Amino acid sequence: MKLDVPGFVAGAIAAGIKKKDRKDLALIFSETPACAAGVFTTNAVQAAPVLFDKQRIVSGGLFQAIVANSGNANACTGANGMEGARAMARSAAKALGIDERGVFVASTGVIGQPLDMAPIEKALPELATHLSPAGLSDVARAIMTTDTFPKAISKRVQHEDKAFTVAAVAKGAGMIRPDMATMLCFVCTDVGATPELLQKALTNAVDKSFNAITVDGDTSTNDTVLVLANGLSGLHLDDVNCLQIFQGALDEILLNLSLQIVEDGEGATKRVAVEVKGARNVDHAKTVAFTIAESPLVKTAFFGQDANWGRIMAAAGRAGVSLNPEAIDIFFDHVHMVKDGQGCGQQAETMATEVLRKKHFTITVDLKLGTASATVHTCDLSTDYVKINADYRT
Amino acid sequence: MKLDVPGFVAGAIAAGIKKKDRKDLALIFSETPACAAGVFTTNAVQAAPVLFDKQRIVSGGLFQAIVANSGNANACTGANGMEGARAMARSAAKALGIDERGVFVASTGVIGQPLDMAPIEKALPELATHLSPAGLSDVARAIMTTDTFPKAISKRVQHEDKAFTVAAVAKGAGMIRPDMATMLCFVCTDVGATPELLQKALTNAVDKSFNAITVDGDTSTNDTVLVLANGLSGLHLDDVNCLQIFQGALDEILLNLSLQIVEDGEGATKRVAVEVKGARNVDHAKTVAFTIAESPLVKTAFFGQDANWGRIMAAAGRAGVSLNPEAIDIFFDHVHMVKDGQGCGQQAETMATEVLRKKHFTITVDLKLGTASATVHTCDLSTDYVKINADYRT
Repeated sequence: MKLDVPGFVAGAIAAGIKKKDRKDLALIFSETPACAAGVFTTNAVQAAPVLFDKQRIVSGGLFQAIVANSGNANACTGANGMEGARAMARSAAKALGIDERGVFVASTGVIGQPLDMAPIEKALPELATHLSPAGLSDVARAIMTTDTFPKAISKRVQHEDKAFTVAAVAKGAGMIRPDMATMLCFVCTDVGATPELLQKALTNAVDKSFNAITVDGDTSTNDTVLVLANGLSGLHLDDVNCLQIFQGALDEILLNLSLQIVEDGEGATKRVAVEVKGARNVDHAKTVAFTIAESPLVKTAFFGQDANWGRIMAAAGRAGVSLNPEAIDIFFDHVHMVKDGQGCGQQAETMATEVLRKKHFTITVDLKLGTASATVHTCDLSTDYVKINADYRT
Repeated sequence: MKLDVPGFVAGAIAAGIKKKDRKDLALIFSETPACAAGVFTTNAVQAAPVLFDKQRIVSGGLFQAIVANSGNANACTGANGMEGARAMARSAAKALGIDERGVFVASTGVIGQPLDMAPIEKALPELATHLSPAGLSDVARAIMTTDTFPKAISKRVQHEDKAFTVAAVAKGAGMIRPDMATMLCFVCTDVGATPELLQKALTNAVDKSFNAITVDGDTSTNDTVLVLANGLSGLHLDDVNCLQIFQGALDEILLNLSLQIVEDGEGATKRVAVEVKGARNVDHAKTVAFTIAESPLVKTAFFGQDANWGRIMAAAGRAGVSLNPEAIDIFFDHVHMVKDGQGCGQQAETMATEVLRKKHFTITVDLKLGTASATVHTCDLSTDYVKINADYRT
C-alpha cells in the first residue's frame, strides 16, 4: 500500500533497544510545521512519553516530528523515565535540525525497565538521514511488539478541485480495551487544520474505533494516537464540507486500523462484532456489548466454535444493566439462535455452528427494551493468547 | 473427612441426566424440619431453580430437603424450566414422604437445554431409600461439573456443655466471580436458628468468602448457597455467644470451600491472594484488588511464573480509582518488588520469581493513600482454562 503523504517523510532503524537487528526506532518528519492533536490512555498509571506528549498538546503550537521506539515502554520509570523522554525528543530535534518543542515521543514494550537512551541517541542521526516519503511502512513495522503483522492504511480524498491524503500506522495486539489499549497510532495528513478542529475530529473518530474494540480488557500505560496535519493540500477543516469529508476519512481509517488490531489480537483466530440493540440507552448497549465481548467464557466458546449461547445470556445478565431475560433474542450472523430468552433448537444450533467456523461474524443481541444500540469488536480467546502472555518477557 | 451432622442424611445416584454411570442427582434430607437461609446469584438471568428457591425463602417456614442435579443448569428454559423445578421438588417430597413446600432445588451444568425430568423422577424413589449420615460426600461428588475434586468440610464446635456441627459441600470451577459464581454450596448444621439470624450469619460469611474469589470474572445463572439448621444440638443462635461462635465456624467453612473452588479454578496451577491496602476506603481496595485479580495479563504472567509487576501497575491504574502511581509499593509474599512506583531491581526480581514458583502466594499492593484494605483470591490463567472451556459442551 502506498503511504506517501505530501510533505511527510519517515523511516526506521535497528537501534538495538531490546533485540539486535530488529527495527525498533521510528521517526516521522513533517517538513512543514504541522497542526497536531492527540488522544491518550485513561489509565491512572501513565508512561513518561504519554505525560510528555499530553503536556506538549496542552502547550500548543506547531509540530514537526514523532519519534517512537518499541522494546521498552518507558513506563513506571520515575524521574529518569521523564528525563529519557525529554532526551529522546531533544536528540530527534537535533538530528532533524528543528526546534525541540516540535517533537512528540512514544514508547511501547515492557513496563518498568529503565530505558537506556544511549542506543537511541546514537541511532537517531543516521535514521534522520534515511527518511523517505514511503517510509511510513517501516514505521508500522518498527513499532510492532507482539503484533504479527504491520498495520497501515492510506486514503486520498478529492474535494472540489483539490485532494488531501490521510495515512496512518498503528500497533497493538494485547492489553487492548476501550478507552485505549497498548496501542500506538500515528496519522499524517496534508489537510489544513486548527488544533481545536483536529482534536474534535480525532476524538470523534477514536470513539467509534479504538474505543470500541477489546482483546483482553486490559488497558495499557502507553496508548497514544497522534495526528499531524501540515496543510499542504490547500484544503482546510474550517471549510465545513472539507471537515465533513475529513471526518469520514478519519473515521474509516481508524476503524480499519482498530479492526486490524482486533484481528491481530494475541492468539486470535476470529474477529467477532458484538452488536447490542434494543437497549434503553447507548450506555446500556455499550455496557452489555463490552461485558459479552470481554467474557472469557464467551471468547473461549468462539475459539472452540461452540454455539454456547447460554454464556452470552449469562454475560448479558451480569452486565449490571436491568433487562428482561425472557425478551432477549440472539442472532449468530443471520441465524436466529435465541428467541424470547430460549434456544431455537437443534437446526438453529447446527446453522450457528457453521457461522462460528467463519473468520469474521456478528453476534446480535436484541434486548427489546428500547431503540439504542452499540457495536464492539472483539476476538476469540485461544490457548495461544495464554502462551504468548505467559512467556512475554522471557 | 467425616461429614455427619446429627439429624441429616444424604446420598447421590446416577440418574443418567447427561452421562451414564456418573452420579448426577443428589439429595439432602433433614429428618427434623429445619430453619433455612439462602444466597443466590445476582445475575439478571436466573435459572429456574434459583427463582424457585428465592420464592421459597421469601415464603418462609421450615424445610427438610435439597434436591440437586448436575449435567444441566435448567437455565434459560422458560416456563417449562420452572415447571421442571417444581416437579423435581414434588418428586423429592413424594419419595421422602414430606410436605413438598419443604424442598429446595438446585441445578448446575449447561445453560439453555431443556431438562428432561423423566430420569430424575424415575431415580428419586430409589435415591430416597439409600440416604445415610455419611452421604454428604456423595453429594459433593454428584454436583461436580468441571471440578476436578469434590469440595467438602466439617467442623464441630463446643459451647459450654454442648456442641454443634457444621458440614458443607460445594462445587465450582469456572464462571466464578464476586457476587457468586457457577457454584452451589449446601450447609447442614444442628444449631438452632431463626430465619433472620441464619440469613444474617450466611450473608456475612458469603461476603468474606464466595464474594471475595474470582476465577474468570464470569457470573453464573445458577449460584446458590443454602443452609439448613435443624436445632438438634440444643444450642441456638439467639444466645449471642453461640451466634458469635457459629459465625466464626461458618466464616471458616465457607472461606475454606471458596479457596478450594479457586484452587480448582479451571486449568489453574496456582492460587493467589491479592491484597490491596492503604486505600482510601474498602470499596476502592476491593475494586483495585478485583481489577488485578481478573486481569488476563496478570493471570497469564502468574501462569508463566513471570514477575511482570508492570502488568499489576497497569491493572491497578485502570481500576477507575484515583491513585498516585508514584506512591505504590508491591510485594510478592515478603519480597519488596516495587517501591514508590518503580522496580526494586534485579535481585528483587530474582527473589520474586522464586515466590511465583510456589503453589500459593500473596501479592500485596500498598496504595499509601489511607488505611482500608481488601483481599481477593484468584488463580492463574493457563492454556488448560482455554482448552476446558473451548470444548465444554462437546
